[in-house]
Amino acid sequence: MTLAIDSERLQSEIEALASISDAEPPAVTRIVFTPTDLQARAWLKERFEAAGLAVRQDAIGNTFARWNGSDPKAPVVGTGSHIDAIPNAGKYDGVVGVLGGLEAIRALQRDGFRPKNSIELLLLTSEEPTRFGIGCIGSRLLSGSLSPDSARKLKDADGKSVDEVRLQAGLRGELEEVKLPPGYYKAFVELHIEQGPILEREKIPLGIVTKIAAPASARISIEGAGGHAGGVLMPDRRDALCAASELILAVENAARTSGSIDTVATVGICDVFPGAVNSIPSRVRLSLDVRDTDLARRDAVMDGIERASQEISDKRHVSVQTEMLNADVPADCDPGIVQALSRSCEKHRLSFRPMISRAYHDSLFISRVAPVAMLFIPCRNGYSHRPDEYASPEDIVRGALVLAETLASLSA
Amino acid sequence: MTLAIDSERLQSEIEALASISDAEPPAVTRIVFTPTDLQARAWLKERFEAAGLAVRQDAIGNTFARWNGSDPKAPVVGTGSHIDAIPNAGKYDGVVGVLGGLEAIRALQRDGFRPKNSIELLLLTSEEPTRFGIGCIGSRLLSGSLSPDSARKLKDADGKSVDEVRLQAGLRGELEEVKLPPGYYKAFVELHIEQGPILEREKIPLGIVTKIAAPASARISIEGAGGHAGGVLMPDRRDALCAASELILAVENAARTSGSIDTVATVGICDVFPGAVNSIPSRVRLSLDVRDTDLARRDAVMDGIERASQEISDKRHVSVQTEMLNADVPADCDPGIVQALSRSCEKHRLSFRPMISRAYHDSLFISRVAPVAMLFIPCRNGYSHRPDEYASPEDIVRGALVLAETLASLSA
Repeated sequence: MTLAIDSERLQSEIEALASISDAEPPAVTRIVFTPTDLQARAWLKERFEAAGLAVRQDAIGNTFARWNGSDPKAPVVGTGSHIDAIPNAGKYDGVVGVLGGLEAIRALQRDGFRPKNSIELLLLTSEEPTRFGIGCIGSRLLSGSLSPDSARKLKDADGKSVDEVRLQAGLRGELEEVKLPPGYYKAFVELHIEQGPILEREKIPLGIVTKIAAPASARISIEGAGGHAGGVLMPDRRDALCAASELILAVENAARTSGSIDTVATVGICDVFPGAVNSIPSRVRLSLDVRDTDLARRDAVMDGIERASQEISDKRHVSVQTEMLNADVPADCDPGIVQALSRSCEKHRLSFRPMISRAYHDSLFISRVAPVAMLFIPCRNGYSHRPDEYASPEDIVRGALVLAETLASLSA
Repeated sequence: MTLAIDSERLQSEIEALASISDAEPPAVTRIVFTPTDLQARAWLKERFEAAGLAVRQDAIGNTFARWNGSDPKAPVVGTGSHIDAIPNAGKYDGVVGVLGGLEAIRALQRDGFRPKNSIELLLLTSEEPTRFGIGCIGSRLLSGSLSPDSARKLKDADGKSVDEVRLQAGLRGELEEVKLPPGYYKAFVELHIEQGPILEREKIPLGIVTKIAAPASARISIEGAGGHAGGVLMPDRRDALCAASELILAVENAARTSGSIDTVATVGICDVFPGAVNSIPSRVRLSLDVRDTDLARRDAVMDGIERASQEISDKRHVSVQTEMLNADVPADCDPGIVQALSRSCEKHRLSFRPMISRAYHDSLFISRVAPVAMLFIPCRNGYSHRPDEYASPEDIVRGALVLAETLASLSA
C-alpha cells in the first residue's frame, strides 16, 4: 500500500465548509438545525455520495455514509465527528474528523483497498450544547445515554423543542429508532484536534487518547430583586448580578484548589435580566461546566460550588437554583484500537504519545455501545472554540493518514 | 376655585398607555423610536389635541402641547416628563408626569381658569438610556447640555445613529433647532413617582424636591482570552467573566464604603462573548452607573473603581477599558417654585416633606435653562423599573391636584 492523502482537496473542503457559517470569517458559527447547518449537511451529503458512499440519516439527523465491505453482515468499522460550531468558533473542531475521515476513505479507495467490514463515516448531530444546553445529543441517543423522552423535553432559548426543530428540518422517523442495535460497531475511531496545548508544546504530531474526561454541566438561576439604579439604597439591595459574581469567582476557586491540574470549571453564559444601564439586575442565569478525569474529584468540586451557592443565597437573600443538565462518567478507550492506532503511527514513522482528552467528545457516549478510541492532532496554542483556532495542513494530513491506515487494519 | 382631578379617566389613560408596550402585562417595555413608542406618541398627541392644546414636535421628538395664555409673549410655565420605559418596567415612571400633567390642565380648564402665561405640557424624548446608552437625550438637547454633534455620534446596539432612527420616525428639522431660546420658561415643574422608599415609609403623600442627584455612567469593556472550556487549564486562563465578576463586586464595595447612604452604584448590563456553555468568555461589556448628591464623593467612588480596574487588569492579564458616557453635576431646585409647591400643598391640607432625588430626571437638564422643581408621590416599596412598580390612584390624584394648583399660581 502507498496510502496518500490529498491535502489540497482536504484543505479546500475545510475552507468551503467554513464558509457555510453565520459569523464573519474567519469565525465560524453553525448552530444545529439552523438553515446554515442544514446547508452544510446537504453540501457534505453530496460529497459523501460522490465518493460512492451510501448515505442514510436517522431521526435525529445523525448521518451514516457507508462504504460497503465484502462481508456486509460483519460489524461496522466507524469513524466521524461533528460539524456544528458554537458562536464565533473556528474551522477545525469536529470538521477535521468528518472531512479527514472522508479523505481517509478516498485514500483507501484510490489505493485499491477492499474492506471486509463495512466502513462508515458518521456525522453526529449537536455535539455542541449551544442550542439545547446539552452536548452530544446525536451520540447520546445512538448509545442510549439519553432517553427519547428526555430528548423530547429539551428546548432551545426560543422554547422550541428538539422534535419541533428536527421535524422542521425535514427529519422523519421516531427518536426511539436512533439507538444502535448491540454489536453494530466493531470499532469507532474519532480524529480530532487536541483543543489543548500538549502536543504542540512537546512537538509530537499525534496523540492517542486512552481516556476521555467526564463533564458535568448545570444551569444556575439566581433571583434577587430589581429596582431603579438611582432609587434603591445599597443596604436595601438584593442584586442578582453581585450574587452571580461571587458565585462565578467561587466556581473558579473550586477548580483551582481541587488538587489536580486536570480539573477545569467554566461559567460561559451570564444572562442578566432586565439588562438595562439604570436597572438593578433582578435575575441572572449562569451556565456551569466542570470537567475532570476523576469522577470523585469532579463531584467534590460540584459539592464545593453547591456550598458556595448556599452561602451566597443566605448572605444576600437571593434564591440560587441549580439544575443539573448532565453529569457523565469518564470513558476508557479500547486497548485493541489504541494498539491499532499505535501500529499505524509506527508504520508511517510518526511519533505519538498516549494522552487523556479533557474536552469531551461523541466518542465518550459511543463508548457505551462500541469499542472506541480517539486520535488527536495539535492545534495552535491549544486554542479552540475561537476564530483563530488552527491546525496545520501537515498535521491534518498526518492525522488522516494514520486514520486511513487504522480503518484499513480494523476492516481488513 | 374647586379644582378636581378626574381620577377615573386618569387611571384608564394610565392603563391604556401601559397596553402600548413590547412586554407581557403587567410589564411595560417602550424603547424610544420603536414602533411601539411611536404608537404611544400618536395616541398621546390625539389626547393633547382633544384637550384643545396646540401640539408641536421638535427635531428630536420632544413634544410641546400648549395651552395659550392671555399674554402669549410671557415666558411659558412648563410641566411634563417622559413615556419611554426600559425593558420590563412598570406603568408609572414618567407616565404619571405626562398623564397627570394632562389631567391637571383639564382640571384647570374645567374650573374656568384662564392662564396669563401659556402652560405647556412637555413630552421628552429618551429619558431612559436603554437605546443609546445615555439618558435624557431630549432634555439634554433642549438645554444645550448635549451638543447636536455629540448627539449625532450616539448609536444603538445595532449601530443605528440617533439621526437615522429619528428620521425613520418621521422627525424633520435639524438637531441645532432643538435648544430652547434663553428665557423660554418662567418655570418648569415635573411630577414623578419617588422611585425610592421614603414617602411610603414616612406615610407622607408628597415630596418637594430641592436637589437632584448627579449620575455618572460608563461602559466598561474587558478583554481576556477565550478557548474551549475543557481544553484550557485553569492557570492558563484569562477569563473575561471572572475579571468582570471581581470588578462588579469592587463597584458594589466602592458605593457601600463611600461614607454616605446617598451613594449608589450599579452594574445593570453584563454582556458575555461568545456566551456559550463550553467556551471561556473572551470579552465582557459592563455598564456602570454611579450616583450621589455630592459631586466630590461621587468622583471619589469613580476613582476607586478605576483603581480596582487597574488591579484586576494587572492580576488577570486582561485589558479593562472604561468609556465615560456622562458625568453630570447635581441640580438645585428653584426656591420660588419650591415655595409655590409648598403653598399648594398647604392650600389642599396635604402634608409634604422636602427631599432630594437620587434618580435623575429631565428636570436635571432643564434646570440649566429654566427654574425647575419636582413633585414626588410615593410608590410601593420604593420599586420602579420593574413590572410591580405601583402608585395608588389616591396618591396620583394628590400629585395632579397640587401640580394643577401650582401651574395656576405660576401662570396667573
